[in-house]
Amino acid sequence: MVTLPDGSELDVARGTTVEEVAYRIGEGLGRDTVAGLVDNELVAAETPILEDCAIEIVTERSDSYLDVLRHSAAHVFAQALQRLHPEVKLAIGPATDDGFYYDVAGVDLHEDDLDEIQAEAEAIIDADYDIERVECDRGEALEYYADNPFKYDILETEAAGDDPVRFYQQGEFRDLCAGPHVSSTGRIGGFELLNISAAYWRGDEANETLTRVYGTAFGSERELEEYLEMRAEAESRDHRKLARELDLFSIPSHSPGCAHYHPNGMAIRRELETYVREVNDELGYEEVRTPELNKADLWKRSGHYENFRENGEMFAWTQDDTEYGLKPMNCANHSHIYDTSMRSYRDLPIRFSEFGNVYRNEQSGELSGLLRLRGLTQDDGHAYVRPDQIHEEILNILHAIEDIYDHFGLEVLYKLETRGENAIGGEELWQQATDALRDALGAKNLDFDVEAGEAAFYGPKIGIDARDALGREWTIGTVQVDFNIPRRLELTYVGEDNEEHYPVMIHRALLGSFERFMGVIIEHFDGKFPTWLAPEQIRVLPISDDNLGYAHEVAAELGDARVEVEARSWTIGKKIQTAHEDRVPYMLIVGDDEEEAGTISVRDRAEREANNVERDDFREHVEREIEQKHLEPTFLAGR
Amino acid sequence: MVTLPDGSELDVARGTTVEEVAYRIGEGLGRDTVAGLVDNELVAAETPILEDCAIEIVTERSDSYLDVLRHSAAHVFAQALQRLHPEVKLAIGPATDDGFYYDVAGVDLHEDDLDEIQAEAEAIIDADYDIERVECDRGEALEYYADNPFKYDILETEAAGDDPVRFYQQGEFRDLCAGPHVSSTGRIGGFELLNISAAYWRGDEANETLTRVYGTAFGSERELEEYLEMRAEAESRDHRKLARELDLFSIPSHSPGCAHYHPNGMAIRRELETYVREVNDELGYEEVRTPELNKADLWKRSGHYENFRENGEMFAWTQDDTEYGLKPMNCANHSHIYDTSMRSYRDLPIRFSEFGNVYRNEQSGELSGLLRLRGLTQDDGHAYVRPDQIHEEILNILHAIEDIYDHFGLEVLYKLETRGENAIGGEELWQQATDALRDALGAKNLDFDVEAGEAAFYGPKIGIDARDALGREWTIGTVQVDFNIPRRLELTYVGEDNEEHYPVMIHRALLGSFERFMGVIIEHFDGKFPTWLAPEQIRVLPISDDNLGYAHEVAAELGDARVEVEARSWTIGKKIQTAHEDRVPYMLIVGDDEEEAGTISVRDRAEREANNVERDDFREHVEREIEQKHLEPTFLAGR
Repeated sequence: MVTLPDGSELDVARGTTVEEVAYRIGEGLGRDTVAGLVDNELVAAETPILEDCAIEIVTERSDSYLDVLRHSAAHVFAQALQRLHPEVKLAIGPATDDGFYYDVAGVDLHEDDLDEIQAEAEAIIDADYDIERVECDRGEALEYYADNPFKYDILETEAAGDDPVRFYQQGEFRDLCAGPHVSSTGRIGGFELLNISAAYWRGDEANETLTRVYGTAFGSERELEEYLEMRAEAESRDHRKLARELDLFSIPSHSPGCAHYHPNGMAIRRELETYVREVNDELGYEEVRTPELNKADLWKRSGHYENFRENGEMFAWTQDDTEYGLKPMNCANHSHIYDTSMRSYRDLPIRFSEFGNVYRNEQSGELSGLLRLRGLTQDDGHAYVRPDQIHEEILNILHAIEDIYDHFGLEVLYKLETRGENAIGGEELWQQATDALRDALGAKNLDFDVEAGEAAFYGPKIGIDARDALGREWTIGTVQVDFNIPRRLELTYVGEDNEEHYPVMIHRALLGSFERFMGVIIEHFDGKFPTWLAPEQIRVLPISDDNLGYAHEVAAELGDARVEVEARSWTIGKKIQTAHEDRVPYMLIVGDDEEEAGTISVRDRAEREANNVERDDFREHVEREIEQKHLEPTFLAGR
Repeated sequence: MVTLPDGSELDVARGTTVEEVAYRIGEGLGRDTVAGLVDNELVAAETPILEDCAIEIVTERSDSYLDVLRHSAAHVFAQALQRLHPEVKLAIGPATDDGFYYDVAGVDLHEDDLDEIQAEAEAIIDADYDIERVECDRGEALEYYADNPFKYDILETEAAGDDPVRFYQQGEFRDLCAGPHVSSTGRIGGFELLNISAAYWRGDEANETLTRVYGTAFGSERELEEYLEMRAEAESRDHRKLARELDLFSIPSHSPGCAHYHPNGMAIRRELETYVREVNDELGYEEVRTPELNKADLWKRSGHYENFRENGEMFAWTQDDTEYGLKPMNCANHSHIYDTSMRSYRDLPIRFSEFGNVYRNEQSGELSGLLRLRGLTQDDGHAYVRPDQIHEEILNILHAIEDIYDHFGLEVLYKLETRGENAIGGEELWQQATDALRDALGAKNLDFDVEAGEAAFYGPKIGIDARDALGREWTIGTVQVDFNIPRRLELTYVGEDNEEHYPVMIHRALLGSFERFMGVIIEHFDGKFPTWLAPEQIRVLPISDDNLGYAHEVAAELGDARVEVEARSWTIGKKIQTAHEDRVPYMLIVGDDEEEAGTISVRDRAEREANNVERDDFREHVEREIEQKHLEPTFLAGR
């Protein structure tokens, strides 16, 4: 029995292949079949179905088709490389979210070798070789890879039980592979080798170092070009690059994964903190503050110990016979505060918020600027509510989130994450909590994807993704219902019935962490922050040194804004260019004319200009623009 | 040659006693001599001068006289205890800042035994025994203490070279002692035993547990009574007690030495942070933010490692082959930020501020509420200046400090701490830095004490003490000049001469740490915070439940303040009483009369009242009072 994507079931004999299932559904689908998704795993069309499963037929129109095509592109790369360097030892070459890579050894490759390989790969694509599955017996396969320790290792491990062994062949090239693949190399419309890095066999630093060549592929040249353009734009907006150019923050080698905020970066963070505080105050969250350092006992009680410490994800150590750790979450500490007083049903909801510094021992290879850190500050919050208050509480939070993201021009996407394998607490509780989240999303008519099994161990959640100016999606905030921790830590309130009850705990973060959110918006805005966020909001540029006094006078009147005077003795052209490079929203240019008339010339980041502007007009406008958190400088809009 | 307090010198023969020096100065002084301070160490009048030294004669009018008297009081206690419990083994009994203690073993003492001992001690004081120095030879002393392992140990260690051995005798009691003492037990005008705690011989937990009896003594009964009153007041104001009553913070067993701020405590902290941010902005400090977690390398370079880590004062550990630590100071991280850009002489001063979370592994016995913690947030700041900018920079900081402390009604006391033994960097640099601090204090006409040898290892400093409402002094802020770290970390700027120079680094904290400062002001204000700081600034009390709607309306108009409505169905008397207990600055009482007239009745924490108050008048007044940071509620002042 197989289950189809629309939920219908089809009774098929054991051993029926994916392609045969497709033909059972319809002649056309059968012909178009490229591969199958069996229980969400990509398999070749020839794969026999051996037990009940969920099945989806992959055609050229499927989302998964790109994965198949890119896997084939990896083979094309390997074939081209082997033609040019017959001595190469191929290791593995999978598809990735953005393309593919192939890890190889035995050749000394550099970025400038890629052009030659690219040309050979294009020739292979032009030749449109059929890509065919071939099988050979185990002994033959072992002999074939006698000189390739990597493939030999795979034959001895993952493929240990296979006889015959599956290969895919195109022209003179064959590769040990379970597939699936496109039908011929000519199906690859766009192919591009991108860059080279180092890797380890099996990802283990103890093993041999390999050369990893990255590439990407699409069904058409046009799609490839669009991707390469977006990639170049994303590179030029890389927040690590912008952070250096705009002097926002650094992550030095003495604190890998921990950001140092420079004054410009901190100016942005202060604005974000102020904004989130306002929202928290409105939502009725009371701010608290709890230490980074605690004894491990705390998390042994809360259950975080087994989920973080035992996977090596906590910073933890023993000193003076005490086991200490840095908090990986704030919930246990907030629950302590809840527990310091008797709570009555009349007191609920009790809501605590904290800009909580948490530390997690991420692998150094996983670290990525502000997007993946070891030390970060969550804009965390926990509401302890009665069961009858869950719905309204979640609605209020979702409402606040929509409002916030709107102020950054970010589109919000919701996903509902449900019970995973390492969950604590019973199924019934999970179901109850999951329903509460689903109902709240429904009540606000919000679209959402369900991500089965993706929730954290302590409760189901709504993940908040933001889609940025380049269309990329970033997981940022969360709203999470938790029936477990109150039971585990024996947090209670006295009900109207005078009995003790467990409150429901709602974990939520609006921005997620200040660091990751800043990483996202630096790229989203390309460093061109809205005026309210810009580290330097206004720069006054005197045309000559003679106007420096007046420039300072103009700046002083704008004292509530972050305003600087350009005091370097440069040409006005260079001053303007530098202000543009620094992405300052407003430039006020003051020369003899302005000084005489007591006015200013205003130029904005979008290169709009106006002369003879009254200082008060400008000041009042900008104060309002900052207050209202406009996305762009608006004073010169429409001029 | 001895140097007298006025700086003059006196040539005396080797072996001249302190008392003889006093007679050389004047007949009267000789007669009044109780003891001497030789190179700042208290010694008996009979002590011979053996080398050049600074000497001060101690009489009944000297500050040090109380130390002498209290040491004698410790002997009186020991005599009384020995009379009642001849089996007692006396250990040591020194004077302290507040009185004295005596550590004893061999008797089972409890607080309720103190009355009996007190009575016996008073009898000894009434008997006015002469306290006389006696000597005996070493063998005799060892025999005398054959059954007392503590005194025997002292004879074998500190007093190992003494022969004859010095004792002091009063009546039948004698004690191994170098003195000095008052002339007779009757000089002790006020004597009070206070409490009992546990201690270890030589302060080492591996040694025998002793019973420590605390007491105090004064020259007169009146001074004792004043002290005991102040002590009772201090106990009732203990910030740990008030923190529980006012729900400000907790320091749970899972984080010893690390405060959890509850919402009320956090409300105060937020106000303090906002205030300090304003001052920092005005002083030109740019806020930065650096991680708690760093690799130990950072502090190996800065020199903090040898001064903190090697004394076990850092939280530090090795994980994944890397030595990590929690920052004990922020200077190394700020210096990294300084070092990320080329700096020019025109850019200086560069000033970084941070509310920096630091951790220090204080011994658990040393922890004391918010006053001595392991985790704390300094309102830290570092200015990197040119040598010619030191003076003005320090003046500006001292000016800000005066202004801040004034807003808390705290008197400021300054002390200049100079080079200690573990100092890094040369003597000449220290002298230059010390002169800069001394000159700035002088320029502002500020009194200051010099504390020789008390500075931290990296530079001389001005310690800022605050004197609170009970006259107690608390060390809080610092201003510290540092010529060393820039050299050590090779921080430079390019001078007008195009050469690289080392900036001078000025470390400063205005409040010191938020935690300690809060501990001090909680006690200073007895929990009656000025309106701008109060967690709850206004409470609206409806006379009956019928007025609840109007109460909420009144509260809503005051939305910018922290205002609560008392919604419990209590009598108005109980509502008022509870608001007083909670130390809320303003109570707005609203009944039918007020509701009808659209007015309010105002009552303040000082129990002043006014009826028929226009709501706008009150709101405008309180907004101003908060804005201007008045120390007391002023709306009803003078009514």
